Amino acid sequence: MAEIVDNPQPYWYRDTWAPQDCYLSFAIREHLHHQRTPFQVLDVFETHSFGTVMTLDGIIQLTDRDNFIYHEMMAHVALFCHRDPRRVLIVGGGDCGVLQQVLQHRQVQQLIQVELDEAVTAAAQRFFPELCTSNDDPRATLLFQDAVQWVAQAQPGSVDVCIVDSTDPLGQAERLFGPAFYGHCQRMLADGGILVVQSESPLLHGHVVQSIRQGQREAGFSAVRTMTFPQPTYPSGWFSATLAGKNNDLLHPRQEAADPGRSLATRYYNAAIHQAAFALPSFAMAW
Amino acid sequence: MAEIVDNPQPYWYRDTWAPQDCYLSFAIREHLHHQRTPFQVLDVFETHSFGTVMTLDGIIQLTDRDNFIYHEMMAHVALFCHRDPRRVLIVGGGDCGVLQQVLQHRQVQQLIQVELDEAVTAAAQRFFPELCTSNDDPRATLLFQDAVQWVAQAQPGSVDVCIVDSTDPLGQAERLFGPAFYGHCQRMLADGGILVVQSESPLLHGHVVQSIRQGQREAGFSAVRTMTFPQPTYPSGWFSATLAGKNNDLLHPRQEAADPGRSLATRYYNAAIHQAAFALPSFAMAW
Repeated sequence: MAEIVDNPQPYWYRDTWAPQDCYLSFAIREHLHHQRTPFQVLDVFETHSFGTVMTLDGIIQLTDRDNFIYHEMMAHVALFCHRDPRRVLIVGGGDCGVLQQVLQHRQVQQLIQVELDEAVTAAAQRFFPELCTSNDDPRATLLFQDAVQWVAQAQPGSVDVCIVDSTDPLGQAERLFGPAFYGHCQRMLADGGILVVQSESPLLHGHVVQSIRQGQREAGFSAVRTMTFPQPTYPSGWFSATLAGKNNDLLHPRQEAADPGRSLATRYYNAAIHQAAFALPSFAMAW
Repeated sequence: MAEIVDNPQPYWYRDTWAPQDCYLSFAIREHLHHQRTPFQVLDVFETHSFGTVMTLDGIIQLTDRDNFIYHEMMAHVALFCHRDPRRVLIVGGGDCGVLQQVLQHRQVQQLIQVELDEAVTAAAQRFFPELCTSNDDPRATLLFQDAVQWVAQAQPGSVDVCIVDSTDPLGQAERLFGPAFYGHCQRMLADGGILVVQSESPLLHGHVVQSIRQGQREAGFSAVRTMTFPQPTYPSGWFSATLAGKNNDLLHPRQEAADPGRSLATRYYNAAIHQAAFALPSFAMAW
């Protein structure tokens, strides 16, 4: 979680790591884009160390250098935990990096992405075109509207995997982190379905992870598992996502996950990483 | 790896993450200590977000908030991979955090720590007393001298586990990262012995990891395995250590590692983490 801060000097971008004055700072080569969308302030910078960087309300969303870890983990772990993931919903995900990973799975027949802010996708297409190569895939539908409403009105049992690729639980996105939303997701998912949501830093935001897990359990999911992975440009450089299964124990990835390289081009995800990601540190055992 | 930089403004400390202008910055509550030792410049800061922080030549060595991850991983993985670790050598390790973890293992009968700079240990005792609670353990001997010479002159077969807890491979520490040093370690270790060295960031310093692995192989170790773990205040927030076995395949932790909580107080390390740490990302498969 972070907040907008005034840059103390020109040509520097700072992302808040912790509420009390800890920042990750990048020297900016060029400020490529600045836009006040109907929902947030969107900026794109070119940096020396991490390439192109997109921020929303002053918070890093993705960088050239490390977005592959987050995007691969948000897509492949849940998809391989599902026995036959045909219908996928992405909530948020405007940069289209998760969408691209999901569509590497040939079983997927329908992918709907519900992003609030069309400007995010427009900026991704312009500044991160390498992430948007699957946007025109005939299986994909990109909607720009409120996902909370969309999920509340979705047909019961109409989705196999729901991926919540949202901003931090502040402002608009806060509604994506509560038991009410998880209840709608649970209803929308078919039997064996999986919900996966980004759940912040294990080190800095343990209370967020715990609250997400509790909300998912209250919504009636039969299994809840948290995974962690490195994400250098998110607070603490260590991030998590929490999966919830509807009559799915999340313990048995499909056979194909044992050799994902046969069907997927990945730079981070593989069979060993899939299992390893669920190993939680001792301090998190009680979550 | 980092370099000393002039603080752009008072009361801020910046640690370089990448050679081209990416920093982790902390607001400083108090600059507790500044000392030019015979070997380096040592500072201790009190920060808002990460508690007390020690730096050497401007590079973060440890913070209150996250040192447990590094110290536990450097000690317990190697010790549990050894069938009977009685004689342990720590190279560097002046803050005594690894020493403290090692001495949790009751099998250890003798621990020798060879740190170049006595000022580091003196500062740890003053500013990180909670890490130094085992310094007076009768099994421990703290020497302050050049570890390269010490290892070169050590009796063959006299050490079971050698832990290299050094600064980055710059300046004095560079000699701890070459094939010559690894050769001396190999000779010093008894059959079944293990060398473990910190090997920098998997994302930013892949070339360092590869060079360490190659150096260890050239030194005659029969197995080389790299593990990764989060370390928020080191560059990229993602760190690695590389183990080398002398007739030890490093694949079979002792039975006790399956339930380390019975004998160890840990906040990060546990049996699942032990196995998971060795899962390498796809981009590192060829290392």
